[in-house]
Amino acid sequence: MKPEQLKLYLVTDRPLSLGRDIAWIVEEAVKGGVTMVQLREKDCDTREFLEVAQKLKSLLKPLGIPLLINDRIDIALAVDADGVHIGQSDMPYEIARKLLGPDKIIGLSVENMHDIEEANKLDVDYVGVSPIYSTATKTDTAQPFGLEGLRKAVALSVHPTVAIGGMNTKTAYDVIKTGTNGIAVVSGICSADSPCEASKELLEIINKD
Amino acid sequence: MKPEQLKLYLVTDRPLSLGRDIAWIVEEAVKGGVTMVQLREKDCDTREFLEVAQKLKSLLKPLGIPLLINDRIDIALAVDADGVHIGQSDMPYEIARKLLGPDKIIGLSVENMHDIEEANKLDVDYVGVSPIYSTATKTDTAQPFGLEGLRKAVALSVHPTVAIGGMNTKTAYDVIKTGTNGIAVVSGICSADSPCEASKELLEIINKD
Repeated sequence: MKPEQLKLYLVTDRPLSLGRDIAWIVEEAVKGGVTMVQLREKDCDTREFLEVAQKLKSLLKPLGIPLLINDRIDIALAVDADGVHIGQSDMPYEIARKLLGPDKIIGLSVENMHDIEEANKLDVDYVGVSPIYSTATKTDTAQPFGLEGLRKAVALSVHPTVAIGGMNTKTAYDVIKTGTNGIAVVSGICSADSPCEASKELLEIINKD
Repeated sequence: MKPEQLKLYLVTDRPLSLGRDIAWIVEEAVKGGVTMVQLREKDCDTREFLEVAQKLKSLLKPLGIPLLINDRIDIALAVDADGVHIGQSDMPYEIARKLLGPDKIIGLSVENMHDIEEANKLDVDYVGVSPIYSTATKTDTAQPFGLEGLRKAVALSVHPTVAIGGMNTKTAYDVIKTGTNGIAVVSGICSADSPCEASKELLEIINKD
């Protein structure tokens, strides 16, 4: 994985897609310039999860945009995804790496400075610094980092970082200025009237200066 | 897998364990004579699922009692379980087999005669005929087979069968008399005052005659 692929990272969310097809959201977002996609499904059965993952794989592979699967290593293996994103309550990194092999991307959520220090000891491909702001997307998250916390997190991490939680057109500029490699966007794209336009707008902000 | 290992098959259920430790339930049930164990977790996070699976693996491996994981092939791979049990909404058999390799046990739920005909074309190790009776354990299940339906299912299946749904000390005798290889018990053991005694009692009924 190239760190610049973290620049505008779409994380899918079924409820926040407002009843619209997830593959459509991704397709539109890709047209708008997203650089990486994470399929996150929390409440659907394995068969449905697999079918969406297969669709996204067909869509993204020809474009060279990495597809990561949230948490579910079985789904990642089944569709030969580019990797997984794991949280602190998911499979431990060592087991995930063993199951996926050395070449797959593994991203890890870090919720505080201690998590970052622990992640520094691991061969993860990036860390997702979460959350930067408090957000309605996830209700079980830790204390927000804020901009100052993110700046410290970026400095502390030996791995590329992507900022998540409250990323939108209002926050993106300040967040990118901390030096983080990118922003991971959920509702800002999934719930947008036009996921394509929303992605374009975010990318312009990220690329400003 | 030997078909006789299906004889008294414990399927775990967290809510039906009434707040008691799942590893304790399994340990007691094993003392009482269960011949196979399926760890089924529907609402816990991956880390917790993994930790219970690791505990059960340590407990069951020295005893030679197969441990199967419901649905989650990643958990099965992570703990080197003996196999998985998949339902009609889980990973398709072919992908499960590819991920697990030729030597692992794969059991498949069948909910009607058509499912059995389809399963007959696959190299599954057993089919779980579900449900025999309507039950409070699962609310999303198909029309019950009943005893007569089970008899037909056993005759139709080219694979060993295990009956599930409403298996208890009242139903076990009639069910075993249909010729099925075993019964899969959920609440009859998980919710019993003594999972050990309940298992013993069920095994006596199964072995009667």
